[in-house]
Amino acid sequence: MQAEIITIGDELLIGQVLDTNSAFIGRELNKIGVSVYQITSIQDDKSHILKAFSEAEKNADVIIITGGLGPTKDDITKKAIAEYFNDTLVRNLAVQENIEALWKLYVRQTLLQVNLDQAYVPSKAKVLMNTLGTAPGMWLEKGDKTFISLPGVPFEMRNLIVKEVVPKLKGKYETPFILHKTLLIYGLGESTLANRIEAWEDQLPSHIKLAYLPGIGKMRLRVSSKGFDEQKVIDDVQRQIDNVMPLIEKEFVGFEDEGQTMEAFIGKKLSGLNLSLAVAESCTGGKLAERFTSNSGASGYFKGCIVSYSTESKINVLGVSKDIIDKYSVVSGQVAEAMAMQTIKKFNSDYAIATTGNAGPTKGEANAEVGTVFIALATKQGVISEEFMFGQPRERVVNKAISKALEMLQKEILKN
Amino acid sequence: MQAEIITIGDELLIGQVLDTNSAFIGRELNKIGVSVYQITSIQDDKSHILKAFSEAEKNADVIIITGGLGPTKDDITKKAIAEYFNDTLVRNLAVQENIEALWKLYVRQTLLQVNLDQAYVPSKAKVLMNTLGTAPGMWLEKGDKTFISLPGVPFEMRNLIVKEVVPKLKGKYETPFILHKTLLIYGLGESTLANRIEAWEDQLPSHIKLAYLPGIGKMRLRVSSKGFDEQKVIDDVQRQIDNVMPLIEKEFVGFEDEGQTMEAFIGKKLSGLNLSLAVAESCTGGKLAERFTSNSGASGYFKGCIVSYSTESKINVLGVSKDIIDKYSVVSGQVAEAMAMQTIKKFNSDYAIATTGNAGPTKGEANAEVGTVFIALATKQGVISEEFMFGQPRERVVNKAISKALEMLQKEILKN
Repeated sequence: MQAEIITIGDELLIGQVLDTNSAFIGRELNKIGVSVYQITSIQDDKSHILKAFSEAEKNADVIIITGGLGPTKDDITKKAIAEYFNDTLVRNLAVQENIEALWKLYVRQTLLQVNLDQAYVPSKAKVLMNTLGTAPGMWLEKGDKTFISLPGVPFEMRNLIVKEVVPKLKGKYETPFILHKTLLIYGLGESTLANRIEAWEDQLPSHIKLAYLPGIGKMRLRVSSKGFDEQKVIDDVQRQIDNVMPLIEKEFVGFEDEGQTMEAFIGKKLSGLNLSLAVAESCTGGKLAERFTSNSGASGYFKGCIVSYSTESKINVLGVSKDIIDKYSVVSGQVAEAMAMQTIKKFNSDYAIATTGNAGPTKGEANAEVGTVFIALATKQGVISEEFMFGQPRERVVNKAISKALEMLQKEILKN
Repeated sequence: MQAEIITIGDELLIGQVLDTNSAFIGRELNKIGVSVYQITSIQDDKSHILKAFSEAEKNADVIIITGGLGPTKDDITKKAIAEYFNDTLVRNLAVQENIEALWKLYVRQTLLQVNLDQAYVPSKAKVLMNTLGTAPGMWLEKGDKTFISLPGVPFEMRNLIVKEVVPKLKGKYETPFILHKTLLIYGLGESTLANRIEAWEDQLPSHIKLAYLPGIGKMRLRVSSKGFDEQKVIDDVQRQIDNVMPLIEKEFVGFEDEGQTMEAFIGKKLSGLNLSLAVAESCTGGKLAERFTSNSGASGYFKGCIVSYSTESKINVLGVSKDIIDKYSVVSGQVAEAMAMQTIKKFNSDYAIATTGNAGPTKGEANAEVGTVFIALATKQGVISEEFMFGQPRERVVNKAISKALEMLQKEILKN
């Protein structure tokens, strides 16, 4: 079972909009044993769309198309589908009722002809009702191939994938079981890791696939397999993981769930232990807090954060002593530690993390080398800090600082 | 001049890693007048890579390939290139020296054979020296077609695109001038906008392209053209914009720079006026602060933020009166206003924005309807708040809240 994803829209090709739809669809298809053979992003151009359809039909069983279903003239996916299927567009009354209902509920203005026209669909299409928007999803079959057209608006597309597409695909195709296990490893570079596990890698049977995914401050090692016998797939992967484990024992920190992030992992641990966290951020500017709060349930363990972006606010809001700042400078281990201590006190939390540094591109008030970051971790017992040099660019400094802060916190929490 | 981007890596197809490289490359190519015809993401599979090369060669003049250049066994792009060009891999001494130097500087462990092997490149390739990593970029020519292979690590790839690829492409090809002007429009839905400007749209000459880009709480309308006569392209686009402007006068808020975000726009305005901002966040959890601080220069106007995620921290850290919370509940206009007032005071800023709400998926302490958000804006003169219902899912509530907060702030700042 292979799928191809075709995302349509000029904005993708000029880089104005990031294609996040494909990754979501890839994950959801994988869960039900459908491999994605290729992702193709193309312009709103009918002849190119038709060419992409015909190429995809050769390679894949299921073709999922997103985008180009809006009410405006640049949206031509529906016309291309009608032409490809040698079909005509007909008014679908259920879709029209959905559009009218949505309009009444959310827009409360006169319903326009262009919106009513969204109720036209190819006569051969089965409609996948989009309860969150006016562009209907469509399901078309050509022999044993299935074409699925979805709106490009991410939350509408995601809702249709989960509620309509996945259940229907599971009903139509017998799909294999796909398993990915991803090992999170800290403190080893890609090549050192590869060297260490080379003998193990060489003996892997061909149905076990291995991938190295380097990240900032960490490696992810993904072991995958698929097959129709679910238990055998699980056992095969587990056996290989058991074999590699002794080689990476010291650096292995855990498995990454389906897209699980380190902050979600930490959050679950904190919830389970009934412990809490607060954060003080300078150079990371709120991103560490955002990482935690983007997980639902964060209010159970995340007490809050102070982004003290100016020196003034480190003193007046966070309560760091001016003497410490004057003596050691605002980018220093002492200030990071004072920030963490003030935070654990103010928020009455069990842990506090603090960052201060210079993310660049230019030297700030403190005159610290661009890329320098101090991270402090406070517990009820005391406080520690570490100094890092993350170079440039700015974005990388912030991401590395967050990664290191999470690593320090995770190590501390795992002591429980 | 057409380009195709081929991104290689299983992690892209299973949705484990988001392809951000293509959007960056698309933007950079567009700036020098190269249109991206297609983006193709494929697995680390040699026969598929070869097929993608041959397809791309038919459609595009320039083929940019990222990924699959790592030191590990799953990285096979270089072998595929050698096979496609009927070539062999030879050791490149300059690359080897670069690897050794990087190793000495950053890794300080024994240099491994797998890393030394990264110095092997196809003999027909011109090396694009990657000063930030061990995988070299490569430039190969086949008749008038150019194949460029780059590492998949985003900051290495970006550095090579800017420093090597773009200058070399400008030297080799005579490229047209491409112009995109994007109009930011608030308060009009896609179809209402389309209806309003229909007559204008219908008269557009064929070399002017129009796109509607719907976003949360806003529309972007992109007008594009290209040609070898730069001044004519600029004049043509400007004339059409002048014609449409009277139709959208009330809702037009400004032009979007090359990827300019609303927070960058606000930041520039604040800097120019020498005014400052602080933020208090509950349901948006630090994301509003992160949006501002992700722009370099933010320290000039962004004083800081308090993420008061728990009710306790709204009282103890932010200093909102317990009486107000008890009387109106933590998700209320009164609490949002108190948060904003405390923030403007604590940070001594000119503006303060505060958010409180329930992002879901479940009801929180305050028992407010899931999706309810209150946003307050404080100035030196006073404070206002607005209530919103953003529905679900959680991520959408947060994004809509941020978008609305930025909109309120922008309106206020534009009064200056």
